[in-house]
Amino acid sequence: MKIIIVGGVAGGASAAARARRLSEDAEIIMVERGPDVSFANCGLPYYIGDKITNRDKLLVVTPQRLKERFKLDVRTRSSVESINRTAKTVQILNLETGQGYNETYDKLILAPGAAPLRPPIPGIDLPGIFTLRNLQDMDRIKSSINAGVKQAVVVGAGFIGLELVENLVELGISTTVVELQDQVLPPLDKEMTAPLVKELQDKGVTLLLGEAAAGFEATDDGLVVRLKSGQALPAQLVTLGIGVRPENKLAVDAGLDVGPRGGIQVNEHLLTSDPNIYAVGDAIEVQDFVLESPTQVPLAGPANRQGRIATDNIFGRESTYRGTQGTAILGLFNKTAATTGASEKTLQRAERAYRKVYVHPVDHAGYYPGAQQMTLKLVFDPESGKILGAQGVGGAGVDKRIDVLAVAIQAGMTVFDLEEMELAYSPQYGSAKDPVNMLGFVASGMLREEHPQISVEALLKIPEANRPLLLDVRTIEEHDAGHIPGSINIPLDELRDRLSELPQGKEIAAYCKVGQRGYLATRILNQLGHPTKNVSGGYTTYGHYFMGE
Amino acid sequence: MKIIIVGGVAGGASAAARARRLSEDAEIIMVERGPDVSFANCGLPYYIGDKITNRDKLLVVTPQRLKERFKLDVRTRSSVESINRTAKTVQILNLETGQGYNETYDKLILAPGAAPLRPPIPGIDLPGIFTLRNLQDMDRIKSSINAGVKQAVVVGAGFIGLELVENLVELGISTTVVELQDQVLPPLDKEMTAPLVKELQDKGVTLLLGEAAAGFEATDDGLVVRLKSGQALPAQLVTLGIGVRPENKLAVDAGLDVGPRGGIQVNEHLLTSDPNIYAVGDAIEVQDFVLESPTQVPLAGPANRQGRIATDNIFGRESTYRGTQGTAILGLFNKTAATTGASEKTLQRAERAYRKVYVHPVDHAGYYPGAQQMTLKLVFDPESGKILGAQGVGGAGVDKRIDVLAVAIQAGMTVFDLEEMELAYSPQYGSAKDPVNMLGFVASGMLREEHPQISVEALLKIPEANRPLLLDVRTIEEHDAGHIPGSINIPLDELRDRLSELPQGKEIAAYCKVGQRGYLATRILNQLGHPTKNVSGGYTTYGHYFMGE
Repeated sequence: MKIIIVGGVAGGASAAARARRLSEDAEIIMVERGPDVSFANCGLPYYIGDKITNRDKLLVVTPQRLKERFKLDVRTRSSVESINRTAKTVQILNLETGQGYNETYDKLILAPGAAPLRPPIPGIDLPGIFTLRNLQDMDRIKSSINAGVKQAVVVGAGFIGLELVENLVELGISTTVVELQDQVLPPLDKEMTAPLVKELQDKGVTLLLGEAAAGFEATDDGLVVRLKSGQALPAQLVTLGIGVRPENKLAVDAGLDVGPRGGIQVNEHLLTSDPNIYAVGDAIEVQDFVLESPTQVPLAGPANRQGRIATDNIFGRESTYRGTQGTAILGLFNKTAATTGASEKTLQRAERAYRKVYVHPVDHAGYYPGAQQMTLKLVFDPESGKILGAQGVGGAGVDKRIDVLAVAIQAGMTVFDLEEMELAYSPQYGSAKDPVNMLGFVASGMLREEHPQISVEALLKIPEANRPLLLDVRTIEEHDAGHIPGSINIPLDELRDRLSELPQGKEIAAYCKVGQRGYLATRILNQLGHPTKNVSGGYTTYGHYFMGE
Repeated sequence: MKIIIVGGVAGGASAAARARRLSEDAEIIMVERGPDVSFANCGLPYYIGDKITNRDKLLVVTPQRLKERFKLDVRTRSSVESINRTAKTVQILNLETGQGYNETYDKLILAPGAAPLRPPIPGIDLPGIFTLRNLQDMDRIKSSINAGVKQAVVVGAGFIGLELVENLVELGISTTVVELQDQVLPPLDKEMTAPLVKELQDKGVTLLLGEAAAGFEATDDGLVVRLKSGQALPAQLVTLGIGVRPENKLAVDAGLDVGPRGGIQVNEHLLTSDPNIYAVGDAIEVQDFVLESPTQVPLAGPANRQGRIATDNIFGRESTYRGTQGTAILGLFNKTAATTGASEKTLQRAERAYRKVYVHPVDHAGYYPGAQQMTLKLVFDPESGKILGAQGVGGAGVDKRIDVLAVAIQAGMTVFDLEEMELAYSPQYGSAKDPVNMLGFVASGMLREEHPQISVEALLKIPEANRPLLLDVRTIEEHDAGHIPGSINIPLDELRDRLSELPQGKEIAAYCKVGQRGYLATRILNQLGHPTKNVSGGYTTYGHYFMGE
């Protein structure tokens, strides 16, 4: 068996190592365009920010180690230029010598990755404008910073962009973020990003949403970034993180099927339209595990898994890829934001029915010092209660809850299962009713019709004249410190005694700080003849919609 | 509907609050022997250690709040003395006035909890010897410490005992732990507790295993604890944490069924043998979710859930309790230890077939600063791969992995599902191959017979003459720093070139530091005609068996 693997980072390296584990006598050639294989691309922003100080640590495995330990034929600085599917050969170009040669294969695995988008904006090729994909990009940005950067513009507020922001700010660089969408971290729903916006503001970052770079010009002091709005931003460093496109040229030239957004198409065994060619990683189109539709999700974990699965199939071990959930996480200064499964907006785009709830619990028992608040959002099927997606933002413990919910999605669990989860509790780690249990209670209560709820935006969409009576059941002090306009205030503990203040027959939308007292008010009022819904997530969720406006 | 609830802490308070949410007009009487309801008993050790400084924070809900918000009839310092099941009445004793009276009920919920064991050892009632169950116990221990304690003896190295140790040591008290079993934290398997033993030793705690208190005597300087071995320990404070027994007297006197270990027996709706009496919390016998056999597990999370479920059934909402997994966690100085599902020893006791694996990964990407090692152990069905239990011990991130595995057990997942888990990865939070994925790879490899493994103790049980050849595939430096006696050393990267040094036909047990290189060696050697097994968890797991001996 002779296998050629195109690309030596996450998916390619996993495929190669797996191939050797399965066969001592296979001939395994790994062809990688860059000088490095299997490097830690998720670590690049942190080397720029001096959090990772030893560059060698980013080299997960060296070509030398792959040769010694896995008996691989590693060819770095080499590019596969074309595939002859009939002859089962590839043409390889040695980028050092310029020499080309052919190599036969029995099986080919394509793991070329995805390249950062670099739109044809005037001046985009000026010095000082960078994308960040590999160690060489990282070195260039680092050199630029070492040469003196006072102001940076980060174009694109996705994962890599925001990770760069954190690191640039911590180096003392004045940083502006320019994002075309009206929110940061577009994989999340907008209201979930409010705490990130606040965090950026607190750290002195200038955030320009709904804005884009229109051109770049060289100046005596570096660059000026001209925005669509006309604004001009001086900078000595510009980074572009506005998305990636699959490296599909090789596949397209060879006539392999690619999807509408450019991802190489594969079946559940990760086989392309050619029976001898597999493809894995950021270059492929995958199945969205929740929506069961094609998508492209460039993530390291899935790439590694796919590399393993492609190789298994090559060696006759039937192995299928179950699809990608899109579990992803961002650390931004002291905040964490994470997502798994479908977002509300992807469900809307797919015209899929859903319901949603918010909770704002603390990460561990409130009576133990250091508890930090988080916001969790859950989207689920309105009939079965099956969990479709979850997002979290806050301080400590967000990663744990999103991982728990990622497993729940994988297992096909429902909101009713969340109520019953038995998670590890002692006061430093959680609560007897964990934040995930709370999500389950609130969502199950909605589906059981014990706990009627209305979302903030559903409420605000109702013309004012037809809106339910807004009833704030928090304390007078809380109400006075800020409330939804037009609401009346009856503290929960006085509610039973002040029923006469409520108009008969009028619908009520009750709310409190996070939803807990609003829930109790809803239970009381519905039983006493006042049709009431609880505003999901309360005034805190309301604040998420209006923060920064 | 008139409901009487006996006991006002976790299960009782949850049942009462739920009852009010379901019915505004139910009459709900909560009878609690102590002065407090719904207090945070898991926080008691941390108040003793001054980590929680505001005592009021331990009162999750006051009787006053329950009256105002939930319209409950809360009767503290009151004891239900007997049940007349025919008349459907209880006799209540007011512990303040000494007055007794009867109260009728439609439904009764028993949530009396469990009491700390206090064995009839000579001197056990001397001043300075405490159990820790409620705020009054806590206050007494705190007063004792404030009066001056130089030396403490903690009898029992379970969760509460070890939490007390942490807090006493941090107050500067010289502390000795006395534990009857040959390990600390008996719910875990012994080898998993090795890092805890080391942590205790590092903090200067004297640990006496396989030892018990035989008697206590008053001295000029407080107490002396006489041990079975004859050793005498001076102390000004002794705590007893050697287990609890269900508070079942009321149930037994009323003729309700109780199990062999004293737990009140209930069906899946938490109904006792009387159709009008439910029971919840530490006093009941529950179904072990994994072993499907009766057990007793005193934990706050399950108690809360049971309270809710009992009430649901009272109000005609069919709701079933799925059983208890026993998910539990301990923080001990800088270490975390946690468990969910069955341990190896409970599987052995139940004569249930299983297989097991160990991994020793770090909690987040090794290239990002601050990664901490953990040890995870997984036990699973040898045929289906269904996960039966998991344990973890280490630094950061143990709680997250045990929660993920708790959900996997709840969902009935297999080790093959662990391979495919898509968990949140960025370098601060995890790895592209998460520790849970690693468990999946190692366990699945075992079941697929790709990765033959032998456990340390299975290896050592083989008479020396018949043992496989022990092959250390670590570097020479690692080998020289310590190895399993009798092993030869061929570093992995030299293995293919030094095959001639291996005897033909003899079985080999390969090992490395944590199992990764041992796995690769196993793959290479088996393919090249040397029957080889990998020692699960490598030299690190070996160390767990021999640490402290």
